[in-house]
Amino acid sequence: MATETTPSPEDIIHRMGPAARDAARQLAGSSREARDEALRSAAASIREQVAELLEANARDLEAAKQRGLGGAMLDRLTLDGDRVEAIAAGLESVAELNDPVGRELARWQPSNGLDIARVAVPIGVIGVIYESRPNVTADAAALCVKSGNAVILRGGSEAVHSNRAIYRVLADALEASALPAAAVQMVPDQDRALVGALLQAHEYVDVIVPRGGKGLVERVQSDARVPVFAHLDGNNHLYWHGSADPTMAIDVIANAKLRRPGICGALETLLVDAGAVEHLPRLVDALADRDCEVRGDDRARAADSRIFEARAEDWDTEYLDKVLAIAVVDDPAAAMDHIQRHGSRHTDGILAGDGAVAEAFLARVDSAIVMHNASTQFADGGEFGFGAEIGIATGRLHARGPVGLEQLTTFKYLVRGSGQTRP
Amino acid sequence: MATETTPSPEDIIHRMGPAARDAARQLAGSSREARDEALRSAAASIREQVAELLEANARDLEAAKQRGLGGAMLDRLTLDGDRVEAIAAGLESVAELNDPVGRELARWQPSNGLDIARVAVPIGVIGVIYESRPNVTADAAALCVKSGNAVILRGGSEAVHSNRAIYRVLADALEASALPAAAVQMVPDQDRALVGALLQAHEYVDVIVPRGGKGLVERVQSDARVPVFAHLDGNNHLYWHGSADPTMAIDVIANAKLRRPGICGALETLLVDAGAVEHLPRLVDALADRDCEVRGDDRARAADSRIFEARAEDWDTEYLDKVLAIAVVDDPAAAMDHIQRHGSRHTDGILAGDGAVAEAFLARVDSAIVMHNASTQFADGGEFGFGAEIGIATGRLHARGPVGLEQLTTFKYLVRGSGQTRP
Repeated sequence: MATETTPSPEDIIHRMGPAARDAARQLAGSSREARDEALRSAAASIREQVAELLEANARDLEAAKQRGLGGAMLDRLTLDGDRVEAIAAGLESVAELNDPVGRELARWQPSNGLDIARVAVPIGVIGVIYESRPNVTADAAALCVKSGNAVILRGGSEAVHSNRAIYRVLADALEASALPAAAVQMVPDQDRALVGALLQAHEYVDVIVPRGGKGLVERVQSDARVPVFAHLDGNNHLYWHGSADPTMAIDVIANAKLRRPGICGALETLLVDAGAVEHLPRLVDALADRDCEVRGDDRARAADSRIFEARAEDWDTEYLDKVLAIAVVDDPAAAMDHIQRHGSRHTDGILAGDGAVAEAFLARVDSAIVMHNASTQFADGGEFGFGAEIGIATGRLHARGPVGLEQLTTFKYLVRGSGQTRP
Repeated sequence: MATETTPSPEDIIHRMGPAARDAARQLAGSSREARDEALRSAAASIREQVAELLEANARDLEAAKQRGLGGAMLDRLTLDGDRVEAIAAGLESVAELNDPVGRELARWQPSNGLDIARVAVPIGVIGVIYESRPNVTADAAALCVKSGNAVILRGGSEAVHSNRAIYRVLADALEASALPAAAVQMVPDQDRALVGALLQAHEYVDVIVPRGGKGLVERVQSDARVPVFAHLDGNNHLYWHGSADPTMAIDVIANAKLRRPGICGALETLLVDAGAVEHLPRLVDALADRDCEVRGDDRARAADSRIFEARAEDWDTEYLDKVLAIAVVDDPAAAMDHIQRHGSRHTDGILAGDGAVAEAFLARVDSAIVMHNASTQFADGGEFGFGAEIGIATGRLHARGPVGLEQLTTFKYLVRGSGQTRP
């Protein structure tokens, strides 16, 4: 529909923002049952409207092909019956999770006789900016609604029809459950200036969650006036101490690197202690069997000639691919120093049989997740038992590590007295 | 000392920032004992150097008088023997508090067999920007060091000599305790552009705490790229429900307004339920006895002719003075609606005998602190049992309400395994 004057991006945000705030207020006062019911009803509608969703998706796919988009991109964009069912099932599984709102986080009675409780409440309004996967529309909205937050969605332009169709189902389900439809809103067009306006809208939006590649996260982090839950890099390390069982170490390293090399929890640099370097050829065997390229410093290459020469930039590179950088270090201090200089504070770990060495590493390394004898691929909200995650954060405030439902809440203090006055 | 080229504010921050980061790293790895010992040794030095501190303070007072500064301002700036002793005792009492670092906040074992712990760690580097009271130099630095954080201080220009003298004692005590002196730094001059550079320095500073009047907080909140723990207003409400014991209600209201009208937890607007309005004259008696001006809407004035007419702006005014605004409301919903429209989400409360009405109010009102039958003057970290506070925050992320030692920590996840790989 054409209008006579096109509203500016700021106008649009100034219209959506107060609606989101109002919806957040209503949602914060809603029952768990009402929110779960809305999610289940949205799941049912998704299943009923599978034909419409696939039709909307076909329009996106057609446009993408005309623009010459490639295989991986097209695959991410594509919906089929199974993927639509997965979206519906995802909504239902979020509805099953424990209610993060209203939890009593602490309660105590100071000497003044008051009873003080710290209780979890929704954050308020979450902005989610994401790229091509249409399922993020449902996944992110479900986590926000479940945790009592309103959400403003801005998906990738290539998925605009798919996203809008999914969003309509969610908003209708909210309305049918007597919850405010504006608890889930989607920006009305793909003007990039709208992203800019959203990133500035700290009066309406409490936190922004970017979901996508490094370019998106970089832009959001550099431009946002609103706080951001995100990670830019996952340049993750394992330190192989001489006390580690070599078979265990090789298994964990291979899993950390190769299970899914493209996820942010994948291993990127291995630091091998001089005391473990004798086992390096066995590791290189295991990696070579699975087509993983190995790059290393001089000491690593001296231990195994199949290792390619690493350049300085390798230590700072998140390959997200079947490539592993290996440096040999003299002791735990040198390993921690390397991690300090090159790490991205996402997930770093130690492989060691010596518990004291491992505990010192856990205490000293300042990353969101620090592991002992476990694959870095476990850096995931689902594996942490959070049920689901909206992302992983490497910032230091409020949310750090996997961002699940609990991290989408804040708290308030309830103070119960019996007429106390302060002396 | 003059230098040939004056470094720019950015140069200064780019020198202080990495030093603070290094110091924070060392402090995070330091023992509780070392940090407490540094605070106690600083307290001893403060007592030894009382003459030097008073001399530095005399220079500030002299300059302030020449600039014609007034009584309250001069009083805030003035140190004497008792105030210096209070600074020393304050350092010692912070040393006595429980260590907020290393606390195990949660620990669980998901079905993958891992052992996951969420452990408190220091935030990193805190910037504290404050006005005329020299004691803030010691108080703020002590809370930061105790919680394992490095701090960059920027005090008011009128207290520059006093602040610098106190800061030197702290930095020397850190060094003598084998902790990094750069854990406490002070910006080297009073150039206002340095504040601007500090507010932008998100690569070096994790959070800014402004301590001072509304002008300071406003500037910090509007200019900072670094997250801020602060509150701008404390436009606090009490709602007097008809079920409240009138004697209790009047006691609490008078205390909330008049104990110290100038603190951010002071009551500013009273909402009287139509069912309690008959008791209003007794309240006005109590307030008038203590020189408190009362302003009200038409219904309040109809109940007591001593009440002056309130204007629209009264509902949005934080008087910080012996003035109380009173509006009559029909029910809890109207009270909550007023708080929603005019409140600043700092501290709001209900006075009620009906527990169900009170609990509904506690659940629905979205303020950092929500109280039942207690004076809003209890909105204070000390009264909450936090030992001390660096401020009160009305933001929604990380810290909300009184900001004590625990709120100056963040967390990391420690994942302990036995060789797990992710399927």
